[in-house]
Parts: sequence; structure tokens; C-alpha cells
Amino acid sequence: MKINNKKYSDCWLPNIEDNLWNKKVIKSNIFKNIYIPNNYSFIKKEIIFFIKKENINFNKHIKNSTLIFKINIDMNNEEYYIKKNNKLIWIISKNKNGFLYGLYHIFRIIKLNKYKKKNFIIKEIPSLKIRMINHKDFLSGKIEKGHSGNSIFFFNNNINFNIERIRYYSRLLCSIGINYICINNSDNNLLSTYLINKNLLIQLIEIYNIFYEYNIKIFISINYKSPMILGRLNTFDPLNKKVIIWWEKKIEQIYEYLPNLAGLIVSPCYKNKNNNLYYDRNHIESSNTIANALNFFNGILIWECNINNNYNWKIKNFDKANCIFNNFNNLDGLFLNNVFLKIKFGPIDFQVREPVSPILGSMYKTSQILEFQMNQEYTGQQIDLCWLPLKWKNILYFNTYYKNKNSTIKNLILGNIYKNNNYGISCVSNIGDSFYWTNHFLSQSNIFCYGKIIWNLNINLNNLLKEWIKLSINNNKKVIKNISKIMFNSWITYEKYTSPLGLGGMVEPNNNYIPNVDGYEYNNFGIYHNANRYSVGNNRTSNGTKFTEQYSIRNKIKFNDINKCYEKLLLFFHNVSYKHKLKKSKVTLIQYIYNSHFNGKKEVKEWLYLWKKIKFLINKKVYNDVYKKLILQYKNSCRWCDIVNSYFYRKSGIKDILNRKIYS
Amino acid sequence: MKINNKKYSDCWLPNIEDNLWNKKVIKSNIFKNIYIPNNYSFIKKEIIFFIKKENINFNKHIKNSTLIFKINIDMNNEEYYIKKNNKLIWIISKNKNGFLYGLYHIFRIIKLNKYKKKNFIIKEIPSLKIRMINHKDFLSGKIEKGHSGNSIFFFNNNINFNIERIRYYSRLLCSIGINYICINNSDNNLLSTYLINKNLLIQLIEIYNIFYEYNIKIFISINYKSPMILGRLNTFDPLNKKVIIWWEKKIEQIYEYLPNLAGLIVSPCYKNKNNNLYYDRNHIESSNTIANALNFFNGILIWECNINNNYNWKIKNFDKANCIFNNFNNLDGLFLNNVFLKIKFGPIDFQVREPVSPILGSMYKTSQILEFQMNQEYTGQQIDLCWLPLKWKNILYFNTYYKNKNSTIKNLILGNIYKNNNYGISCVSNIGDSFYWTNHFLSQSNIFCYGKIIWNLNINLNNLLKEWIKLSINNNKKVIKNISKIMFNSWITYEKYTSPLGLGGMVEPNNNYIPNVDGYEYNNFGIYHNANRYSVGNNRTSNGTKFTEQYSIRNKIKFNDINKCYEKLLLFFHNVSYKHKLKKSKVTLIQYIYNSHFNGKKEVKEWLYLWKKIKFLINKKVYNDVYKKLILQYKNSCRWCDIVNSYFYRKSGIKDILNRKIYS
Repeated sequence: MKINNKKYSDCWLPNIEDNLWNKKVIKSNIFKNIYIPNNYSFIKKEIIFFIKKENINFNKHIKNSTLIFKINIDMNNEEYYIKKNNKLIWIISKNKNGFLYGLYHIFRIIKLNKYKKKNFIIKEIPSLKIRMINHKDFLSGKIEKGHSGNSIFFFNNNINFNIERIRYYSRLLCSIGINYICINNSDNNLLSTYLINKNLLIQLIEIYNIFYEYNIKIFISINYKSPMILGRLNTFDPLNKKVIIWWEKKIEQIYEYLPNLAGLIVSPCYKNKNNNLYYDRNHIESSNTIANALNFFNGILIWECNINNNYNWKIKNFDKANCIFNNFNNLDGLFLNNVFLKIKFGPIDFQVREPVSPILGSMYKTSQILEFQMNQEYTGQQIDLCWLPLKWKNILYFNTYYKNKNSTIKNLILGNIYKNNNYGISCVSNIGDSFYWTNHFLSQSNIFCYGKIIWNLNINLNNLLKEWIKLSINNNKKVIKNISKIMFNSWITYEKYTSPLGLGGMVEPNNNYIPNVDGYEYNNFGIYHNANRYSVGNNRTSNGTKFTEQYSIRNKIKFNDINKCYEKLLLFFHNVSYKHKLKKSKVTLIQYIYNSHFNGKKEVKEWLYLWKKIKFLINKKVYNDVYKKLILQYKNSCRWCDIVNSYFYRKSGIKDILNRKIYS
Repeated sequence: MKINNKKYSDCWLPNIEDNLWNKKVIKSNIFKNIYIPNNYSFIKKEIIFFIKKENINFNKHIKNSTLIFKINIDMNNEEYYIKKNNKLIWIISKNKNGFLYGLYHIFRIIKLNKYKKKNFIIKEIPSLKIRMINHKDFLSGKIEKGHSGNSIFFFNNNINFNIERIRYYSRLLCSIGINYICINNSDNNLLSTYLINKNLLIQLIEIYNIFYEYNIKIFISINYKSPMILGRLNTFDPLNKKVIIWWEKKIEQIYEYLPNLAGLIVSPCYKNKNNNLYYDRNHIESSNTIANALNFFNGILIWECNINNNYNWKIKNFDKANCIFNNFNNLDGLFLNNVFLKIKFGPIDFQVREPVSPILGSMYKTSQILEFQMNQEYTGQQIDLCWLPLKWKNILYFNTYYKNKNSTIKNLILGNIYKNNNYGISCVSNIGDSFYWTNHFLSQSNIFCYGKIIWNLNINLNNLLKEWIKLSINNNKKVIKNISKIMFNSWITYEKYTSPLGLGGMVEPNNNYIPNVDGYEYNNFGIYHNANRYSVGNNRTSNGTKFTEQYSIRNKIKFNDINKCYEKLLLFFHNVSYKHKLKKSKVTLIQYIYNSHFNGKKEVKEWLYLWKKIKFLINKKVYNDVYKKLILQYKNSCRWCDIVNSYFYRKSGIKDILNRKIYS
């Protein structure tokens, strides 16, 4: 078996080669003294190697100081304090978890040149208990919509990894506070079954142990049909006694090998396209068996809010947007306590902009995990730059108005609204065996910021982006200025030149990068724009598919009204005449479409200009690699602009009032 | 190396297993006596096995008669007579070639129950000297747009064949009069180079010998860059002395192993998208070197009339249709005598309907091969039934008017117009390692009829189709009636429900089966429909891209005039308002589009009805396999109808006057 030893670059944290890691720790005069509780000695290695690698071991501020790890059992599990008093610096925490987070915090302080400050106190406690990364890796080694190479865990239907890379990855995730990971794709096909087979479980232990050392617990996605495929039973009916016993034994076996496993992830297993589950069980019945068996081991069952509808472009009122709510909302309070529903942020499928899914916050008695996506399936696929934290912030500040005026998603997730529920955030991973981990160097920033945002939902995005630039590129003022200028609004720019006003889609199916306005229009994926010669958009109001009625009354009224609805989501909720004048932008709809695309591509051109200005200020390879990507992005933005504008010009027959070039 | 031993079915000619073939011929009293000239004894095997396999060896008419092969050296090379006089039957021919054709003719007579007739004389001579099949098989074993499985010649970048299957295939082709075959794809990528490497040439001998036994000569497609790739020269400039010598030696080597090779096929090798050939040589210079070297061995060089333009949907007047003529017409008379230009029938790319390419017949002094295609790339891909002989006949009867009122393509090919040129017809193969050879059982008929049509350009299509049904299915009257009703107009039906009026395209690129009206519209393939809210179609008249000016004055005037232009090609030549009333059909354009699609799908539904009626009259497997395909075709026709009508309704805003269901 050939192990994937593809090279990879450093991220915000320097890499430490495994051969160094395995050496005995030799004395080092980095800090004057280091006091560490018993059993945490690997933390000392981490410190020595980090500082060696960063070439700052002669920094006099560090050299003269003493680092002390102090246990305080009254603190919360992941909480930590950092206290500096002249030449003494403490990390205070309940246990190893906090020490690690504190340590990486100190690393950042050192790299950001903030260590000189004589005295400071930092107190940190995560906003959220479940801060998760979700891999879509197949056992084959491919990654579903990965866009960054192949899996670092699997190859050729087997577990296959470079241990050095796994350790580095664990450190990366730990350094930004991620504490849960799902390492495989939750498909219900044959192959995902085998990961819970004994021989693979044994091989998984090594990965599991490394992650666990860094306070990261593993979830495994399973195949719901396993009792049949692995267990050779003639059924996988969750209410069948044999099936119940099979799952109990299987989960016992799993926990024998992986005693601190976080739990399992299941995608509902539909027997047909009408959302009927197998054996006509409902979601509660279907989830109970596994959730019960997991409960004994304090394991969590993540139940994915997926649906399997057979949409039809010919039936306009059967709206994909309605489906999650319709299928899950009435099950509130019926799931077992250790079941979490995993819910995509929007009702469609990770489009560049969607309204927040009304199911979020509408369930009073069900634990929920909000799902983001950073592999950029519909947002440039790591060819085009699209910095996503602004999008996430946008989602977190969405006000559901379910309970009161403060019912934002952020407050929901923080547990301020329904106190008895548990919440978490997960994000589809964007890493693979690419050199930069992500395909686009700048996409690394999406992981970093994701971790930091869900650690602290109130974090300032501007500072956060600058911190990433400083840690991963350098401290040069012009570099920071230009790169943050390029990145900060890149999501908005991407939206402008692709699919504005909440339209979504307009790409080639199964590809989702190449513009194709009618790509999904006559298909059964449920993503339509309904453009004809008069108007465009989806009527999801009370007069249309009634999707708006799933929201709180306040939001319903807002979204139903073409003049009150968020302009950026106008065509998600309304079918609008090309001649309709937008209230906020004060131009006609067709003119908005033209402007948006022309402006989007202009902005990408400006990025090229800004990027060229830092040519000699940053690493040459990074400069060139990003430059090539930006060239591709500019070409892509021009292609989008030409095609979409031409498409709508041909349909509407209305000219651009600014007389820019639109091909007829 | 694993040999592809996939099963395959009989065609119009029964198969004879190779193990039988290798046995010594034992006496058989099929004919009372068989008199065969020396050296043609394998013909006797052919007779015995054919009749055994067909279980007609006790047919008293045959049993009592004597078969005599008689040589007449005054006859033409492939000519033959069959003479029956009571109990004596002669095949008279100059040599083995005519004997084989005569023999297969007698087989057909026997199978068609026409042998009882006491006396008859048949005289046959082929219309054409070059009757060719062109394979697009890659050395990898894949077939470019094959739609019928993998190659029967190659696998895993090597020659790899089941000898029994090759022999059967040779007999099939010989039985319908095919006398040339190209067995590989004429791509200029690395791999096609290696077929002329010594080790592969040696392996090729066995295939070559089998084909040669059946009067079929092989062409090999080569890579123009071979001097560099195989010869390790630092150039492949055709005027470089080293390159000239390399080709001379290489061709000498090829003819050493394959002394009766027909010749080589070359696709022009462009250095860029603007049709500049490498080293800035023109087509004459580029072809001369190889043609010269081939000439010594009486080898033919087939030079493919391909172009490599980078079309652009944004530049309307740069018309793909113009390109072949513009790039080749001015080279008339400059190619060496043994060079044939291979020309696709239409100026675009094997669309369901195109006008005949104006380059055909416009060159007075250049030998030409007209190219058809039966793999059905754009005509249903052997999922949908599309019987192509009607299309071919349509092309052959196209009048170029270049010289006089009889200047049809048929007369051109027959050499009646420019007597000094040589002509041939080639067709892209539709066979692969599928069970039926073709993916759709009924597609077998396209090969059979292709061979028979190019043998005799005046053949009656109706009788021909019936002959195929009798030979390949059975003699039942209802079977013949229903199947020929289904098949005869299937090309017209396919055109109706897909892309009528010469539009072409409207499919997903790289797939070409799934309907997608805008699929090619914003791409660089050169296939556009230009639909906007007022009109649709390509203006290729003298006021447009001027494509019509490439035709004879008579055709130019006809095509330029919206009222005189063939209605079936209206949108190929004109951009027409949806409200324009068609002169012939007497409905508006938009109504024609609606009618065409509704009628097309209705016709497919009728086929299903006709097919079900013969359920118990034909082979069960054939019945079921074709039935499944027809169901798919019906679904496909509905999908096309819904999508295309909806697309044009949304654009035009004009309702169907018959009020049929069009989705808005």
C-alpha cells in the first residue's frame, strides 16, 4: 500500500516534522524555565519545536521569561487564562484542553510580536461546546466536491495516511479551537459501511489517538444499511429486534477500540424520492435504535436533515425550500436527548446567498448543529477567491424573531433562547492533499477564521482577517492592507459577478463552477430562476409556494412584501418584472443585474492590481500561485458577466442604460 | 494481458466459431458438388459452416445443385455474376474478391428463400472503389463517442483482440461490400503514434491478415508528430530533410510488415486555434512528405478536412460553417495524386440535419472521401433509434449545381462530374464490444444498409430495410411491416422531437444526448441558435455570415431567400421571427417548433404500440432489449418536447394555438 506522501506547506502554525517529534526532548533555553504538570510533557516538545521553527528562540523577551502551567479545577473544561507579569507567564486551566488552547494563543502572541508587553491578562472561554469540521472524504480517497485534491485519510477503499500530516492537521485544528471532526462522508452507499468493520477500526486507532491528544474527538459517518451489509441480516428495519441487538453489539465494539469516540453521523435512508424512509419508519423510529445504543457510551447521534425529493421543474409549487421544515419541524421534542439535527444554513444547498433556514430556531426542544460549507462548492471551488466569514457572520446575525427581538441565530446557538437545547456549528472541510491543504492559498484563511469565529461568535472580522495575514504571510503594512482589501469583501464580489439577488444556481449541474444560466432550469434539482421575457425569480411568498409562511410572523410579512424584503434576497422570494424599480438601489431589476455583473468583474480586476503591488513583499511561490488563480478568477468573472448579461438582454430586450458591451 | 472475450450476438450473417474454423474441412453434401479454383479453399469452409449454422442444409433445392466458381479475367476487380440454371449455379468473377461478394449474395438468396427460383442471372459491380468504415478506437480501448462499448482491437494501450470476433467482423463487412477500414482514431496525441512502432506493427499482422483474406484493406491513423515522438528528432517539420528521410524509412518498415496496407490517415496538426499548421507549412507542404513516401507502395494518404478554430459566441460573423471551405477550397489541384481529402457531409459536425458541405464538388482536381457517421453522436447515441440511410440518401441527392442540373453529390461520387478525380465514402463506425455489436439492436441495420447503399448508390431504401429485417429478424409479414414502419422515418422523428429546421446543437456539451437548449449557446464550439425574445436562427445569408456564397450561384440564391430556402434548413440559414409564417407548412415559426416537438414524441409513442404488437413473433431477448430502449426513447422525446417548447414559450411569450401543455 502506497502512502500518500504529497508535500504540503506551512499554515498559520509552522509544521514540525515527525522525525523531530519522535526524538527525545533535549534541553532548550527558549523560556528560562518551563513548569508543566505531569503527563503533559508533549506540550513542552510543542513549545520547543514551534519556537525553533519560527527562528525566534533568541527573542530576548521570551528567553528571559518563565512559562508556568497551572491547574485550576474550578474552571470550565476548555476555559483558559493567560497571565503575564513581567518575566513570568502563566497558562491557567482545568486540564490539558485549556493548556493547549492557551499555548497556541501564546504562539500567536509571539508571532504577532505582542509578547514584549510587560503585563496582560487574557481570559478565554469558547462560545460553543461543539465546534466541528465535517469531512466529505470517501474511503476511495476521493472527496465529494472537495476541490483540494484527495483525502489525507483514505486511499483505495482503505485507511491510508501520512502520520506526520495527520499530526500537523490535528495541531492546526486544535490551534483554532476545533474540538470535533467527522473524517468520512455520510453516504448510504456500500463503502462507508466498512469503516466500522473491525479491521478498519483497528487501523483507525492511530488517527483517533493523534486527534484525541489534541482535544479533538472523532465522529464516524455510517451506513444505515450496515446491519444488512456487514451483519448479513436480512433487514435493517430499526424496530427489528435482531437489528437493535446488532447495533448494540456493533457500537459496543466501536467503543472498545475508540473509547472516547464522539458518536456517529447518519444520513436518513430513503427508500424512494418521496421522502419515505425504509420500512415506513419515521425519523424518530429510525434514529432511536442507534441513539439508544450510543447513549450508554455518552455518544452523540448526529442526524442529518437531508431530504430526497424528486423535484420537477414542471411543477412550480413543489418548492425545495419548503422541504426541510415540512419534514422535520413537526418532530420537535420527539428525538432522544443525545440526538442532534444537522441543518444546512439555508433551505437550498450552500448557494452563494440564501435566507437562513426557518427550521433553525423553530424547534424548541431539539438539539441542533448549524452547518456551513467552506469547500466552496458554489462559491468558486477554490479556483476563485471567496472569503466566507462575512457570509457566516451574516447568517449568525439573522434575526428569526421567533421569541423576541433578540432571537438571532447567534443567540440561538449561544443557548440564550431555548436554554434546554444544545447547539453546535459544523462546517464542511475544505482541505485535501493539496500543497497548501486548500487548493487556493488564500482559502486557508477560511479554516482559520472559521475556528476563531465559532470560538467567539462576537469576534471582530476585520481584526481576525488581519491576524491571519500576519500569521500566515507577514507583518508588512502594505501586505496587510492590500490583502485584506482583496479578501474582506470577496464573497460580495463573487456574488456580484455570479448569481446576485438570491437567484442561486445558473451553473452547469455536477460542475457548479462553469456559468450556465439554464443549467439547472429544466432539471430535477429544485434550483430554478423562472426567467421568461417579462420577469425572473421565485415566488415563494404566501401567494406563491408559501415558503415565507415557515418564518416567524414578522419575517413572513417582511419577506412577502416586495418593498420590504431584503434586496439581496429579492429574487429568492419574488418573481420580479425586469422593469420593476428596486427600492433600495433605485434602479430597475434588469439594470441591477447588469450593474452587478459589470461591477463584480471590475472588482476582481482591482484585486489583480492590488496583488501586483505586493509582488516583492511576500513569498515568491505564494505570490505566483495566487496570481495565477486571480487571473483565472478574472477570466471567470468576465465569462459570467458576458453570459448572464447577454442571457437577460436576449430575454428582456432591454438595453443597459450605461451602454456597456452586452452581446446580443 | 486479458483478452476481451465479451459475448456477442449474430448479425445478418451467422457467426462461425473459430474452433470450427480451424478444423479441417470435412466433406459435406450441402451442394451436390462445389467446384472452386485452387487457393480459394477457405471459401468452401465458409459455405459449409454458413449452411450448417443456418440449419438449412436439408433444403432440397440447395442439396441437389452444384456450385461452380468460374474465373473470367476480363471482368472488373470486384465485379461478379451469379447465374442459376436449374441445378447448376455459377459465381463468375475475375478473382477472389468477386467470389466472396457473390458467395455472400447467394447466402442472402438462400436466407431470403429466393433460391428455389429455377433460373436467374445477377450482375453486380460496385458504384464506388473506396467503401470504407472508420473506427475512432483509441489504443486505450475506449472509443471516441462510441456509444457501443469498448474497442474490439485495443485495450490498455496495446493491441488486444479476440480473433474469432475479428474474423466474424471481417466477414460481416465483406458480406456488405466494405473494402477499406481504418482501425484507430486519428488523433494527434501521443498514443496513436505507437501503432506504427515495430512491436505493435508485428502484432497488427494477424488482424491485417484476417481482414485481407476478406478483401478489406487497412488504413492506419498516425500522429503527425511521430518523427519527434518515435524518431526522437528535434522537429517534425515536413520540409526538414531528416524528417523526410524518417518518414520514408518508417513507411518502408510499415509496408515490410503490412505489404498491402491501404495507406495512412492524418489529421492536420495545428499549432494554435487560428488554423496555423506547425512550422507555418500549408496543407500541401504538410501532406507532401508522407504522400510521397506512400506513393512508392501505391499507398493512399487520407488528409482529414478538420479545422481547429477557436469560435466565440460573442463574435457572430465568425461562422464555423465557413471554415472548411475557406481553408481548403483554394488548394484545389495542389495535393499529390495519392492524397484524398476526407470531408464531413455537413459544414458543422454530424448534426441531425445540415446542408451538404459546399466544399463537396467545388474542387475540380482533388480526390475526395465523403464522410458519414453512424455512431449516432448527435442522433440518439444508440439509446434512441435513428435509422440513418434516409439521411444519407438525402445527402447523396443534394444538387450542388456546380456544373449542371445533374450535379448531385451522387453523380459527383460516381465520377460523372469531374472524371479525373477519385471518390470514396467513409462512415464513422458504430460497433464496439457490445452484445449486439451496436448498443441498440436496431442500429445494426445502419451498418448493413450503409454497406449496401455505397455498393449501389441507386438502391431502393424500402426494399433494403425489409431485406435487413428478413435477414436479421425473420420473414413474418407483420414483423416486417411494423418494424419497417418504426424504422424507416425514425431519423425524421428524431429530428422532430430534438432540433428541427436545421438548428442543431441544443444539447449538453460533451454529452450531446441530454437536451439543453442553451448548452452550446455561450460556448466556443461554434454551434449557436441565437434565440432572443423575437427570433431564432443563424443568418448565414449574404447579409449575414455569407456562408451561402460558398455554394453555386443557383444554391446561393435559393438559400439566401427565406421563402425559397429548404424549410427543413430554414434556421440553419436564416434568423427568423417567431411570428414569421412558413411558406410550406403554413404556420408561424413558433407554431412549427411546438408542432414538431409534440408530433415527434407522439410518433415515438406509436412505435411502442407497433413494437408491442410483435411481442410473440420475434426473439424474446431482442424484443425485450429493444422495448427497453424504446421506453427510454419515449422518455427522452417527452423531455425534449417539454424543455424545448417551454424554452421557446418563455422567450417568445406566444401560446400554442392548439393549447397543448407547455410549461411556463
